[in-house]
Amino acid sequence: MKRIGVFTSGGDAPGMNACLRAVVKTACADGLEVFGIRHGYRGMIAGDIRALDPAAVSNMLQRGGTLLKTARSPEFATAEGRARAWAHLQQWGIEGLVAIGGDGTFTGAEVFSREHGIPIVGAPATIDNDLYGSDFTIGFDTAINTALDAIDKVRDTANSHDRVFFIEVMGHHAGHIAIHCGIGGGAEFVMVPETATSIEQLIAALNRGRDHDKTSFIVIVAEGGALGDAEVIAARVGEELPALDIRVSKLGHVQRGGAPTAADRLLASRLGNAAVEALVGGASGVMLGVCNDRITHTPFEQAIHTQKPIAAELLKLVDVLSSS
Amino acid sequence: MKRIGVFTSGGDAPGMNACLRAVVKTACADGLEVFGIRHGYRGMIAGDIRALDPAAVSNMLQRGGTLLKTARSPEFATAEGRARAWAHLQQWGIEGLVAIGGDGTFTGAEVFSREHGIPIVGAPATIDNDLYGSDFTIGFDTAINTALDAIDKVRDTANSHDRVFFIEVMGHHAGHIAIHCGIGGGAEFVMVPETATSIEQLIAALNRGRDHDKTSFIVIVAEGGALGDAEVIAARVGEELPALDIRVSKLGHVQRGGAPTAADRLLASRLGNAAVEALVGGASGVMLGVCNDRITHTPFEQAIHTQKPIAAELLKLVDVLSSS
Amino acid sequence: MKRIGVFTSGGDAPGMNACLRAVVKTACADGLEVFGIRHGYRGMIAGDIRALDPAAVSNMLQRGGTLLKTARSPEFATAEGRARAWAHLQQWGIEGLVAIGGDGTFTGAEVFSREHGIPIVGAPATIDNDLYGSDFTIGFDTAINTALDAIDKVRDTANSHDRVFFIEVMGHHAGHIAIHCGIGGGAEFVMVPETATSIEQLIAALNRGRDHDKTSFIVIVAEGGALGDAEVIAARVGEELPALDIRVSKLGHVQRGGAPTAADRLLASRLGNAAVEALVGGASGVMLGVCNDRITHTPFEQAIHTQKPIAAELLKLVDVLSSS
Amino acid sequence: MKRIGVFTSGGDAPGMNACLRAVVKTACADGLEVFGIRHGYRGMIAGDIRALDPAAVSNMLQRGGTLLKTARSPEFATAEGRARAWAHLQQWGIEGLVAIGGDGTFTGAEVFSREHGIPIVGAPATIDNDLYGSDFTIGFDTAINTALDAIDKVRDTANSHDRVFFIEVMGHHAGHIAIHCGIGGGAEFVMVPETATSIEQLIAALNRGRDHDKTSFIVIVAEGGALGDAEVIAARVGEELPALDIRVSKLGHVQRGGAPTAADRLLASRLGNAAVEALVGGASGVMLGVCNDRITHTPFEQAIHTQKPIAAELLKLVDVLSSS
Repeated sequence: MKRIGVFTSGGDAPGMNACLRAVVKTACADGLEVFGIRHGYRGMIAGDIRALDPAAVSNMLQRGGTLLKTARSPEFATAEGRARAWAHLQQWGIEGLVAIGGDGTFTGAEVFSREHGIPIVGAPATIDNDLYGSDFTIGFDTAINTALDAIDKVRDTANSHDRVFFIEVMGHHAGHIAIHCGIGGGAEFVMVPETATSIEQLIAALNRGRDHDKTSFIVIVAEGGALGDAEVIAARVGEELPALDIRVSKLGHVQRGGAPTAADRLLASRLGNAAVEALVGGASGVMLGVCNDRITHTPFEQAIHTQKPIAAELLKLVDVLSSS
Repeated sequence: MKRIGVFTSGGDAPGMNACLRAVVKTACADGLEVFGIRHGYRGMIAGDIRALDPAAVSNMLQRGGTLLKTARSPEFATAEGRARAWAHLQQWGIEGLVAIGGDGTFTGAEVFSREHGIPIVGAPATIDNDLYGSDFTIGFDTAINTALDAIDKVRDTANSHDRVFFIEVMGHHAGHIAIHCGIGGGAEFVMVPETATSIEQLIAALNRGRDHDKTSFIVIVAEGGALGDAEVIAARVGEELPALDIRVSKLGHVQRGGAPTAADRLLASRLGNAAVEALVGGASGVMLGVCNDRITHTPFEQAIHTQKPIAAELLKLVDVLSSS
Repeated sequence: MKRIGVFTSGGDAPGMNACLRAVVKTACADGLEVFGIRHGYRGMIAGDIRALDPAAVSNMLQRGGTLLKTARSPEFATAEGRARAWAHLQQWGIEGLVAIGGDGTFTGAEVFSREHGIPIVGAPATIDNDLYGSDFTIGFDTAINTALDAIDKVRDTANSHDRVFFIEVMGHHAGHIAIHCGIGGGAEFVMVPETATSIEQLIAALNRGRDHDKTSFIVIVAEGGALGDAEVIAARVGEELPALDIRVSKLGHVQRGGAPTAADRLLASRLGNAAVEALVGGASGVMLGVCNDRITHTPFEQAIHTQKPIAAELLKLVDVLSSS
Repeated sequence: MKRIGVFTSGGDAPGMNACLRAVVKTACADGLEVFGIRHGYRGMIAGDIRALDPAAVSNMLQRGGTLLKTARSPEFATAEGRARAWAHLQQWGIEGLVAIGGDGTFTGAEVFSREHGIPIVGAPATIDNDLYGSDFTIGFDTAINTALDAIDKVRDTANSHDRVFFIEVMGHHAGHIAIHCGIGGGAEFVMVPETATSIEQLIAALNRGRDHDKTSFIVIVAEGGALGDAEVIAARVGEELPALDIRVSKLGHVQRGGAPTAADRLLASRLGNAAVEALVGGASGVMLGVCNDRITHTPFEQAIHTQKPIAAELLKLVDVLSSS
C-alpha cells in the first residue's frame, strides 16, 4: 500500500482534526502518501481530493470541527454514486481508506468496501458515544464537559430562583451523554431512552426532594426518549405540580464544537495512529476502538448494529447520588 | 445611619455576589451593620433577614447566581405588601437599602422609598445591559463572553457542514447582547430590535455572501424582535432559500450563569462600594452607574424609562465587518 | 458499622469534594452516620470532627480544593500522635474511615489501621496519577486539561514569535501528566523521568525539526527528572543552540485547582460510593480503584510501592506524532 | 491612497488577529489593497510581504497570537535597516501603514514615518495596558481574565491548605494587570510598581488578616517592582513570619495567549477599523485609542512617554475590599 485516503463524515465531533493529524503523521512516518477527501462521501463522488502532509495538519490538533469538512451524500447510497467515487480513488491511486465518523459513515464504508474491494478502516467519532466496539468515541468526552459547563451555569440560576430546570442534552437514541452529565452535574433526576422512566417516577422524585427541603432541581433529559422532548416533559410536570417554577434549556449544537479535551485528543491520536497501522497490516471492514485501554478491531456491521448499553453501575450510581 | 439592608432581585446576573461582597465589606469598613434580605422583596415581606459580615461573603466574589437568592413578588406591588416589608425593616432597625437588580427591582424601590421614606440606592445588575445611566450593567460582560464561547463552538459545526446557523441570544427588548456578540463572533448578520431589519435585507446579505463564495453563516438574532424568534426567522429564510442547510440554536439560560468575568467583578465591586458610600452620603432614589469610568447617580425613574440606545458606531462596525 | 469518618489528606486535587459528596450520600443512603475530619490527620489528632449530611455537601460536586481542608501532620508519624487520633475516633464512635488522598495518606492509613484495628479504605486522589491499582486517580484528568489549556495558550506565543518553549508540568516523580500533555498538546518533545532521555536526544530532535522548517517548538518537561528542571534543561539547550529564542514556563499550582472535569466527577463519585460499600462490606487496608472500568481493591502497600509505568504505546505514540 | 500595509510587532497579545481582520475588511470595503508584512519590522526589511484579502483573515477573529507573526528587529534601529524597509514598501507601492503593537513598535514607527514621510497609524496591542491614549489596550482584558482564572484555581489550593500564595502577574513596569487581578481575584494584598509598598506594610496586612482569623491569603505581585520578584518578596516574608505556609506561583506566558475576550474582540475591531479610516483621512504619527468610548488620536511620542497612572479609585477600592 502506497497511497491512502482519509475523510470525515457524519456529524462533526471535537477531535476529528486530532484524529486526522494522527492519520497523516503516522502515514508519513510509514512512508505512505495521504490524500484528504473533502466533504466525506460527497467529495469522494465529486473528486474533491488533495494531498496532505504534516504541515497541512499543523496546529489542528486543538481545533474543533473538521478541516476536511463533512456532508451528507444521498448519492453515495446509490451504486452509481459509489461507482463514481471508486473511479476517483482509482484515478488518484488510493489503495485504502480511513473513515472518521459514526454509524452512517460506517454503513456506507461497509457497502463500498465490499462492492469495490478497497480496504477501509474506521475511527469512531461522534459525540453520542453510541458505537459498539469502543469504550468511548471521539468527541464524547468534550461534549459531556461542554454540557457540564452549561449545567453548572444553569444551576447558578436554578439555585438563585428556586427553580426546576429541565436540561435537554444530545445523544441521538442513546443516553450516554445524559447519564454522564447527570452524575457529573449532580442532577436530581436523569431520563434516558434506555430505561422506561415514567412521568410518575419523575414526579415522585421531585416530591421526595421537596420533602427533604430541596428548592431547586436539575432534570437531565436525553433527546430521543419515548416520552418526548424536554419541553413536553416539562409541560406535563407543570400540569401536575403547578407550584413549581419550571424552565427548559436545550443545550443544542454547542455540544458539538470547541477544542477537544485531553482525553479526546489522546483517543483521537491513538485511533488515527492505529487506523493507519491496521490498514498497513491488512485490516479492512473494521472499526478501530479502545476497549479497556487496548486497541480493538470490530467489524463495521457489529459496531453499528450492536447496542452499547449504559453500565448498570452508572444507573445505580445516579440513583444513590441524586437521592437527597 | 447605622444599619443597612441589601438584597438581590429580578433575574440573576453574574457578579451579583461580587457586588454584595463589596456592599458588606464597605459597610463594615464604614462601621455599619449590614443585613441580607433573602429572595428580594418576597423575603422583605416575609422578614427573611439575617446579619452579614465579611466572613459570610468570603469566597463568593467568583460565584455566579446570588447567595441571597432572588424571586418575583406580586405582593410587593400592593401597598399592603410594602407595609409588611416596611414593618420588618423597622423591626430590624434598617435605615437604608442597597437594591441589586434591574428595572423591575428599581420600579419597586422607587415606590417603596417614596412611600415609606427609606433611602434606597440601586446597583444595576442584569445581563441585558438595558438600564440607562451606566455604560454597562453587572453581568453583561460575562453574558456576552459566555455567548461568544458558544458561538465559537457553533461556528466549528457551521464551517464543517457549510451550514447557516441562526443563534438566538438574550437581551429582553434590547439588542446589546446581540450586537456585541455579532461583532465579537464575526457574525455574517445581526438582527436587533432597535433596527427594523427585514427578512429581505437578511436574505440579500446571505445572497451577497454566497456570491463571495461564503459557505457558512452565523446570524445572531436578539430575542424580542418584531419579526419573531430565531425559529420563525429561520423558517422564513428556509422557504426563500431552500438550498441552504439551516439550523437554529437558542443559547438560553446558560447566558445567566457562571463565574463573572474580570470586568464584571470590577464593575460589581465598584458599584457595591459606591452604593454604600452613596447611602452614607445621603443619596436616595438613585441607581449607581459607571459612565466614562466615573461613578454616576441616575434617578430610578430615568434609569428605567430612558432607552439606552446601541451606539451608531457599533451598528456601522457590524456592517463593515460582516461584509465579505 | 454505624458511624464512619472521612477525611482528605495530602496535596489537594480537583474532585476531592465530589468524592466526599459521594461518600456522604452513599453512607446516608445506607443508614450510616458520617463524620468529616478536617485537615486530615492533623484534625484527627486535634479532634476537629463534625457530622456531615447531604446538605453539607450540596453544591460541592463542582468545586475544586477540599471542603474538609488538608494538611501535613508530622505528629501522625509518631505512635503518640496516632494514639491521640485513635482516642478521638473512639470518643465519636467512629468505626471505619474513608481516606481520600495519595501515597502519604495511605502510608499513614496502613500503619494506623494495623495499629488500632480500625478498618480504613482509600480513594486515590492526586493529580500525579502515580498510584498503582487505579487506571487514573481523582484529579488527574482535570490537571491535564488545565495544563493543556495553558499549553494551547503558550503555543499561540511560540508560533507568533518562532520560539522554543520549555513547559514544566507537575507529576511528582512520574511522567503521567507530561506524557498526556505531550500528546494532547502536540509537543515536539517530551521529557519524563521514566525514560532516560539525554540532552543530546533533545537537541537532535530540535535539529530535525529545524531541518523540516519548523520554527516553533513546545518541549514538555516533567518535574522531578534526573536532568534537572525546565530552567536547567533550557539553559543547556541554549548553550548548544544559541540561535534559538528560548523561553521557560512552569505551569505550577494552577494545575491543582479548578472545577473537576466530567471524567474526574464520575471517577470521584464512583470511588466515593465504592469506598463506603467496601467499608460496609468488611474491607480494610485497601485502596479502591477503577481498572478497565471495574472497581478494584488494592492493598495500601501495593498501591504505594508498586510503580505504575507509562504505557509503552503512549511513549511510541508521542514519538510518531512529534516527528515532523 | 491605494495600497496600505499592516504588521504586528512586539510581544503578541490576544486580539491582534481581530484587529488585523478589521484592518483588512475595512480597507477592502474602502477599495484599498492591503498587504501583510510578516514578522514586524524584520519582515519589512526582508521584504516578507503578501497581499491579504478577507478570506485570508477568515476565522481568525477568535485566535490568539498573530497570523502575521512578530519579532524583534535590532536592524530596524539603524538608518540602513529602515532604508531597506522603505525600499521594499516603495517596491510594493505601499503608501501607508497600520502598526499593531506596543511602545517599541510605535517608537520605531515614529522614527520611520518622520524619516521617510510615510503615514503610519498605530493600534495599541499589549497585555500590559501601559500605553497612554487609550483606556485599554488590545489584549489586556483577555490577560486579566486568564490570570483571574488561574488565581481562582490557586485559591482552591490556598484555602484547602491554609496557605499564603504569592502570585506574580505580568505588566512590564506597570501594575494595571496586578490591580485588576487583585480586585477581581479578591486578593488580600496587591503590590504594584506605582505605589512604594514596603515589606513592612505587607507583613502588617498579613498580621491583620490573621488577627481576623484568616487562614489563607492571596498576594498579587506585579512583575517589575522595586522590591524584586515574587520569589524574593515571599522569601523575605517567610523570614519574618516563619509560621506561614508560603508558596509562589508565577503565571508567566499563559497570560499572553488564548482566544480574545468579547471586550478585546470589540476593541480590536474598533481600532482596526478606525486605523484604516484614520489613514485614509490623512492621519499619521498617531496611535488610535478608545477613551470614554470614543475613538481618539494620540501622537506616538505622547502615547509612549506619558505614564498612564492607575486610577486612585482602584487603589482605594483594593484597600477596602482586601480588609477583612
